[in-house]
Amino acid sequence: MPKVAILGATGYTARELILLLLRHPHVEIVCVTSRQSDVDTIADSHPRLAGRLDLKLTRFDLDHLTNEGVDTVFSCLPHAASAQVIRPILEQGIRVIDFSADYRLGDVSTFEQWYGVAHPDAERVGSVPYGLPELFRDEIRGSTLVANPGCFPTSALLPLGPLLKQGLIAETNLIIDAKTGVSGGGRSPKPGFHYVECNESIRAYGVGTHRHTPEINQLLDRYAGANTNVVFTPHLAPMDRGILSTIYCAPQAEVSRQQIHECLLDFYRDEPFVRVVDTPPATKQVTQTNFCDIAVNESAGMIVLTSAIDNLIKGASGLAVQNFNLMSGFEETTALL
Amino acid sequence: MPKVAILGATGYTARELILLLLRHPHVEIVCVTSRQSDVDTIADSHPRLAGRLDLKLTRFDLDHLTNEGVDTVFSCLPHAASAQVIRPILEQGIRVIDFSADYRLGDVSTFEQWYGVAHPDAERVGSVPYGLPELFRDEIRGSTLVANPGCFPTSALLPLGPLLKQGLIAETNLIIDAKTGVSGGGRSPKPGFHYVECNESIRAYGVGTHRHTPEINQLLDRYAGANTNVVFTPHLAPMDRGILSTIYCAPQAEVSRQQIHECLLDFYRDEPFVRVVDTPPATKQVTQTNFCDIAVNESAGMIVLTSAIDNLIKGASGLAVQNFNLMSGFEETTALL
Amino acid sequence: MPKVAILGATGYTARELILLLLRHPHVEIVCVTSRQSDVDTIADSHPRLAGRLDLKLTRFDLDHLTNEGVDTVFSCLPHAASAQVIRPILEQGIRVIDFSADYRLGDVSTFEQWYGVAHPDAERVGSVPYGLPELFRDEIRGSTLVANPGCFPTSALLPLGPLLKQGLIAETNLIIDAKTGVSGGGRSPKPGFHYVECNESIRAYGVGTHRHTPEINQLLDRYAGANTNVVFTPHLAPMDRGILSTIYCAPQAEVSRQQIHECLLDFYRDEPFVRVVDTPPATKQVTQTNFCDIAVNESAGMIVLTSAIDNLIKGASGLAVQNFNLMSGFEETTALL
Amino acid sequence: MPKVAILGATGYTARELILLLLRHPHVEIVCVTSRQSDVDTIADSHPRLAGRLDLKLTRFDLDHLTNEGVDTVFSCLPHAASAQVIRPILEQGIRVIDFSADYRLGDVSTFEQWYGVAHPDAERVGSVPYGLPELFRDEIRGSTLVANPGCFPTSALLPLGPLLKQGLIAETNLIIDAKTGVSGGGRSPKPGFHYVECNESIRAYGVGTHRHTPEINQLLDRYAGANTNVVFTPHLAPMDRGILSTIYCAPQAEVSRQQIHECLLDFYRDEPFVRVVDTPPATKQVTQTNFCDIAVNESAGMIVLTSAIDNLIKGASGLAVQNFNLMSGFEETTALL
Repeated sequence: MPKVAILGATGYTARELILLLLRHPHVEIVCVTSRQSDVDTIADSHPRLAGRLDLKLTRFDLDHLTNEGVDTVFSCLPHAASAQVIRPILEQGIRVIDFSADYRLGDVSTFEQWYGVAHPDAERVGSVPYGLPELFRDEIRGSTLVANPGCFPTSALLPLGPLLKQGLIAETNLIIDAKTGVSGGGRSPKPGFHYVECNESIRAYGVGTHRHTPEINQLLDRYAGANTNVVFTPHLAPMDRGILSTIYCAPQAEVSRQQIHECLLDFYRDEPFVRVVDTPPATKQVTQTNFCDIAVNESAGMIVLTSAIDNLIKGASGLAVQNFNLMSGFEETTALL
Repeated sequence: MPKVAILGATGYTARELILLLLRHPHVEIVCVTSRQSDVDTIADSHPRLAGRLDLKLTRFDLDHLTNEGVDTVFSCLPHAASAQVIRPILEQGIRVIDFSADYRLGDVSTFEQWYGVAHPDAERVGSVPYGLPELFRDEIRGSTLVANPGCFPTSALLPLGPLLKQGLIAETNLIIDAKTGVSGGGRSPKPGFHYVECNESIRAYGVGTHRHTPEINQLLDRYAGANTNVVFTPHLAPMDRGILSTIYCAPQAEVSRQQIHECLLDFYRDEPFVRVVDTPPATKQVTQTNFCDIAVNESAGMIVLTSAIDNLIKGASGLAVQNFNLMSGFEETTALL
Repeated sequence: MPKVAILGATGYTARELILLLLRHPHVEIVCVTSRQSDVDTIADSHPRLAGRLDLKLTRFDLDHLTNEGVDTVFSCLPHAASAQVIRPILEQGIRVIDFSADYRLGDVSTFEQWYGVAHPDAERVGSVPYGLPELFRDEIRGSTLVANPGCFPTSALLPLGPLLKQGLIAETNLIIDAKTGVSGGGRSPKPGFHYVECNESIRAYGVGTHRHTPEINQLLDRYAGANTNVVFTPHLAPMDRGILSTIYCAPQAEVSRQQIHECLLDFYRDEPFVRVVDTPPATKQVTQTNFCDIAVNESAGMIVLTSAIDNLIKGASGLAVQNFNLMSGFEETTALL
Repeated sequence: MPKVAILGATGYTARELILLLLRHPHVEIVCVTSRQSDVDTIADSHPRLAGRLDLKLTRFDLDHLTNEGVDTVFSCLPHAASAQVIRPILEQGIRVIDFSADYRLGDVSTFEQWYGVAHPDAERVGSVPYGLPELFRDEIRGSTLVANPGCFPTSALLPLGPLLKQGLIAETNLIIDAKTGVSGGGRSPKPGFHYVECNESIRAYGVGTHRHTPEINQLLDRYAGANTNVVFTPHLAPMDRGILSTIYCAPQAEVSRQQIHECLLDFYRDEPFVRVVDTPPATKQVTQTNFCDIAVNESAGMIVLTSAIDNLIKGASGLAVQNFNLMSGFEETTALL
């Protein structure tokens, strides 16, 4: 039974990951780390885990991982901090699924421009598979390091990827108006995520500056061979979890809504976690699941795609388990249905 | 002291209207009507009004209005039902502010196409002022019938009107991605507005088919002399009230974000209820107020306007009181600050 | 593999039940019924189930159940309607877990007094095990019909049962102040569960008249041999799911908070789904789980017990699966962790 | 026109106070203070106030207050910090309404025991009117310092005060199970008030230790001449504002629910802000208002009182304005309807 470790285990994505892995018949969690010193056990940090996982939170220690015989590390550390520890972990022959943005972009300069820090493992950048199985399954299978996608990119790439690859829509003026639940902002208390500030309110943030913009652009380009231009606007909605991306794009000449709908239906026919549906999806129909639901509508000559995921599952931890299953040779849906 | 009547008084807009009018020093509410027979007083329908307004709900009766000496009627009736009673009311020399869509559009055929019913007062259509003072103040002043705008159109017309009039942005491919609180759906229990269905969820609805689309198009055309093309997508967000419209438009050649920001600043400098702000507004900063807050941002070459209102106040009842003040010669802000 | 049927499958408890059973390795769902005629498949009713369970909703038909070889029926029908179909089902040798109140009370007269209808299966009343394994495990094991408990009673009986049995607290003046999420009110749209009415609000309802009152009283009496007197006040809280019961009781002379805490710790030490915790539990730590978390505090000489469950899981469908596992000889936690 | 200053103006109660005072025809806000140095104007702190109040946030400076001719100070400072500045303010002949707990309790030792700090103005303690006009109107009128009540005490004292005074209910075993919106926790980001932690959850806190307990006890004793014993349990509910107190008490022998209902009806007949209602009130019917709605029910021989207020209005800022009106000789309801 493969042993796994989770780095940065006090956040929401780590908690969801643990809950999924506790359902996984072929995995044992042996180590959970945190840089916080005021909590003792994982259940102190996440009361939901009381009686489910009896582990102390420890500081990261590479020797500990190797002594425990850890097979795979899930890193939920922030960008830069993550790559810094991943380098030595990989050298020990331990596989890594990285939740941070460190290995998602194709070049170091874009990373450093958008994230404002030097990349601690620059030479690996560009050669790491992007962990979106529906678009990059072959690269993920058998790899030792996977860059787990951002939540917004996942919700945008799944509908847009196949359409751009098949040339059904224009590459430019792609407008992605995304709405996310507040768990996307992490677990640290901040004024913007204070209950009374978020509740009963919706607002745009990071207009023109959100770091998922280059990720969406680059991955669309990489996958579809296109040269895309994306306007990406995230919004904070008063709910715990869920992302809805409403995407506006121009169909190529003579391409109908029906053709676009069928393109997606065909593309995702055998995928276990993407459903092309007839009615614009509510985020609620996918929260607590690893599904992405996509609908295709038309409005005044434009195609309106709506795409719903749970930001913590398909947008983070469920996707990570899906990647883990692929990397480890397990049935891809294990622990995810 | 002008006496007013409110038709269709059991809904949310009527309740908000009553609360505002109770603060109005120059108005007396003398009649509230309802087609429901199972509630006796207005406070039975709206517990918040207990001890505030001691009136029985009655069936609509024109003689009653004239006997009471009603000066102005606020009609919160649904479309078609509203115009039907407004005709005879106007003939009695009573002024009317109509919350329905009956007199908003410029031609009967568009109305009948989008609303699917024959218009009960077709000859008046096209000559009724559109009750958005910031754009049509002169027409409203002194009129006897005003078409109170739709909530989504208000949130879109205030930012777009001046920009189109001044030719700073393109008339086509205007994309309006709007998010509304659930009170916009009215007070009648329906599966789509059941608490457990709406809560913790966001979804698009009426994509390409929402009836506010022609209203936005026509009024932009009327005000700006443009021939606009609008993609309008409303979303239901898990909150009581508030609309955020995120609007994507292409600046004309050489026009900068700064110029657009300044155009709006100039245009709204003396307006009491429009604030051009520096940060994308949260709906929460305008709920329970008659304000519209607008921000101008830029993203990948597109202009991103964000516009926030309270759908029940600036999007309905506050705007109605503003129109009432204008029509009646009161200070425009009376009861609204 | 046992085949199961679910009656009344369009409600929330049925949806949760299906989601749990889809994780159960030893069960096949072969039939889902509904009295609604406007939905075709189970996924039409519950979009979350798209691609998960491909069954048409049918009208209840006993022959269909026997032809399919159904082993166990879960009845999510309303009271009275449930017992009416359960009678003939049992005669076919099919086991039943009944979500309704029909078989929970010990005598027909109390049922008829509180539910206001004649009982359709009066002779069985009083002999059916109450499906709360922590208190009545031996009776449930091997039975062919189990009365699945009410959500509020579950949250109250688990903390109070052992304390009364051991004589640590007074039998009278037991005050249960319970707060439930709105899913407890079912899925039918009603004014009281309309989003805008529930959201941002909390209220008591059914004070002194809620039908779970005699259920709590009788089961406490039955389990503890006590003659209890319960003041039960439910409240509707603005959240989807979760019940928090805050229970006030007087300790017997010389009994300390610590003794009460230890009594519960001892009693539940080997129970897989009850956790005695040190801090008053938030409902959020148990939602989406089959756990009941209980804390013991003291205030001005009174003992304050707080008990949190997910009303749809431990308060309904999870408990039903736990009972199913017991009745069928499966590991009790199967599909529930 | 009286000039007023607000100390600690960046919190929620201060914002609500400003919104109310902006509607007050006889008041001018001339000074708003804050100990925060990173915000410049009051509208920077509260975007809702943009265009409404054009004042810079300043550090507290007594000379500034006297130079401006300030008539009344509203202190929204925390306990101890408040009394420290109130002493010198009073010496300048400026009236003060204190939102903190500093002058609410009748003796210094109870204050120091529950608040854990030395009292900075001990000699005044015990002689300051408690600012609940419905119970202590005569003392408030004409005073120069008023202790504005705590939010929970207000919701409990209004229903209990008259009943205890008239001897209709027992003085002991008064159980107050209170549910508050999150704004009661203030504006500082903390883990317990982080959106994702509060949302979709309810929990008890401060069981047996909440500082409003002695305040409720002492004021009931002071007003009713009783020797009360109160079990007070606050809960955090997932909503912005509103308090519902559900209060359990034993009627004296022969006293009926009806008598208790009528006692409250009589007592509050002429009060502008207390409504005795027939149905347990939802907090939503009083939020954004200065009303307290109270219902009387019966359950298993106990009286169940439910009492709803807006914690920020009747529980803080509205009450402060009501006190200000009384102290200043204005109509008591000014700016509050």
